[in-house]
Amino acid sequence: MTENITISVDAMGGDHAPRAVIHGADLALRERKNTRFIFHGRKEQIDPLLEEFPKLKAACQVRHCEEVIAMDEKPSQALRKGRNVSSMWMAIQAVKDGEADVAISGGNTGALMAMATFCLRPMEGISRPGIAAIWPTVRSDIIVLDMGATIGADARQLVDYAILGSALARSLFDSEKPTVGLLNIGTEEVKGLDYIKEASKILSQANGAGFTYHGFVEGDDIGKGTVDVVVTEGFVGNVALKTAEGTARQVATYLRTALKSNWVSMLGAFFASSALTALRRKMDPRAVNGGVFMGLNGVVIKSHGGTDEIGYKSALGLAYEMARSNLIEKISDSVKRFPVHVAASELPSDSEAKSA
Amino acid sequence: MTENITISVDAMGGDHAPRAVIHGADLALRERKNTRFIFHGRKEQIDPLLEEFPKLKAACQVRHCEEVIAMDEKPSQALRKGRNVSSMWMAIQAVKDGEADVAISGGNTGALMAMATFCLRPMEGISRPGIAAIWPTVRSDIIVLDMGATIGADARQLVDYAILGSALARSLFDSEKPTVGLLNIGTEEVKGLDYIKEASKILSQANGAGFTYHGFVEGDDIGKGTVDVVVTEGFVGNVALKTAEGTARQVATYLRTALKSNWVSMLGAFFASSALTALRRKMDPRAVNGGVFMGLNGVVIKSHGGTDEIGYKSALGLAYEMARSNLIEKISDSVKRFPVHVAASELPSDSEAKSA
Repeated sequence: MTENITISVDAMGGDHAPRAVIHGADLALRERKNTRFIFHGRKEQIDPLLEEFPKLKAACQVRHCEEVIAMDEKPSQALRKGRNVSSMWMAIQAVKDGEADVAISGGNTGALMAMATFCLRPMEGISRPGIAAIWPTVRSDIIVLDMGATIGADARQLVDYAILGSALARSLFDSEKPTVGLLNIGTEEVKGLDYIKEASKILSQANGAGFTYHGFVEGDDIGKGTVDVVVTEGFVGNVALKTAEGTARQVATYLRTALKSNWVSMLGAFFASSALTALRRKMDPRAVNGGVFMGLNGVVIKSHGGTDEIGYKSALGLAYEMARSNLIEKISDSVKRFPVHVAASELPSDSEAKSA
Repeated sequence: MTENITISVDAMGGDHAPRAVIHGADLALRERKNTRFIFHGRKEQIDPLLEEFPKLKAACQVRHCEEVIAMDEKPSQALRKGRNVSSMWMAIQAVKDGEADVAISGGNTGALMAMATFCLRPMEGISRPGIAAIWPTVRSDIIVLDMGATIGADARQLVDYAILGSALARSLFDSEKPTVGLLNIGTEEVKGLDYIKEASKILSQANGAGFTYHGFVEGDDIGKGTVDVVVTEGFVGNVALKTAEGTARQVATYLRTALKSNWVSMLGAFFASSALTALRRKMDPRAVNGGVFMGLNGVVIKSHGGTDEIGYKSALGLAYEMARSNLIEKISDSVKRFPVHVAASELPSDSEAKSA
């Protein structure tokens, strides 16, 4: 008999909360029957929904919170107003208190990051947390971080991201020595920003630290799956992620338009419909939903706020896998295994080497 | 009778030079018969090729240069070695001397940028040149810059890119008041790096300057075509471009695989082949080849180094259009029309507001 995995859920986070959240949890429970849920939020909204999902009702607790963090609230404001009382905070607090294995919210990203950092605190040896994305590629899924937990980075923080990302890759992909690449604009050693070159030097010396350092990669290496983990600063990572999403939608639009251009093509599309459905499924952003907040004493998953029950099901599945694979222990182990980490932590924490 | 447009060509730049360059020029000449070419490079390699293209031979001059800049040469090295003697330099020099309307090279980007800047000098009122890409979107082509002419930027340089990009949009798209957006990670005013927020303030006050400032845009707005001109710092722009290229290739691979998955789908692909060919053509990177070096006293086009004659034909067509539309005058006019440009040029040229 496997042990239960308990997920602490901000039931009020996201555009279609709490319905999409609760419905998604029911779908997630069907796939992973040993999941237990703690829902935080307005009882009067959650309880009637649970009547529709009796199996889920038997596998969850509901904790009432009056306060809900708005999507446009500033992180500082959210922290002031929502600490100890909001559904978002309480979802995180349950992880801190050891009641749950992992927390999840589809709410305001900035507020969630601020609360998670404040409540769970950065892990020892990690200077700053990051958000990792699971990125589908032609080879297999890979990890890209940081997706915008913070903007601006120095060499030390990029090294931390390499440690965090490789621990996540070991958790998710069953690979003992994932490959790590630093995102740059050109793969030659002479190019790029100074803090990236500095991070590259440190990572080159760190072979044997639970990952293999590949060197620099470029934007098109992400979709190729050249490495298991792509490390970059949060602003760049966020732009890359959204540009890729935009491009995928753009190509899908081109394809739809082309297939409707004449009746022979429409006939072709009819015959190819199973293939086109498979393609659509492969490109469905709901299938790989969830950013992983890493580097804190506890794992928090951020779901897309605008997603539906299918998206929440995916994010809850990701949360489950993170808990099951003991991600926190893997990270902590990675930090210890990193041979030059002491050297890295002696770097200035806000490198002047930021400009070209 | 239309006047001739003279393009000065580095015949030795790129992986398949000089053959792909010469062949591409012949194709370009067929589309725009009033084009004249000055080829710079090794006469003993160029002359025999011209025998294959008699019409092109009659429309060009060949100027012998022994020196060729290697693809992996450092810009400083290239400048030292290649000044006044290399095919790349001489191609640019012909624009400076008024012999040609525009220059083009498929060679080493860093070296080309260094030589172009050194030879042609930045335009009055522009602090730093940029490389603009023509980016296909679901709406129409748009301009994105900087693509990595330099890395790191301050508020003033982003404002310069807005001026340059909008002038290019007016040249290419026949739109009197193109819309300009600043690339950021979130469209709320509170988010983003300080130098981007500062640039946004300046641009907000500059309405009436030959463009309409839209505000912040995100990565996925590029493919949507939300604005005519997307302005960003060179590192981010380069990563966005390559990530988009990678994603487009990734989706194409998914599609190919899906269509081959069973015979019914293969039959469908057969019927839809005209649509799929149209899609392939739309996504062919050779069709929109050419980065535009802007902000110098003369226009230089950078072609992809790895492209073939089709890619060169596109890049030469772009060069022709740049010359025909008097891009330099349009930029100079934009600089003058920008009402707060004096204020912008008083900003520190290496803003300390770079970090978050």
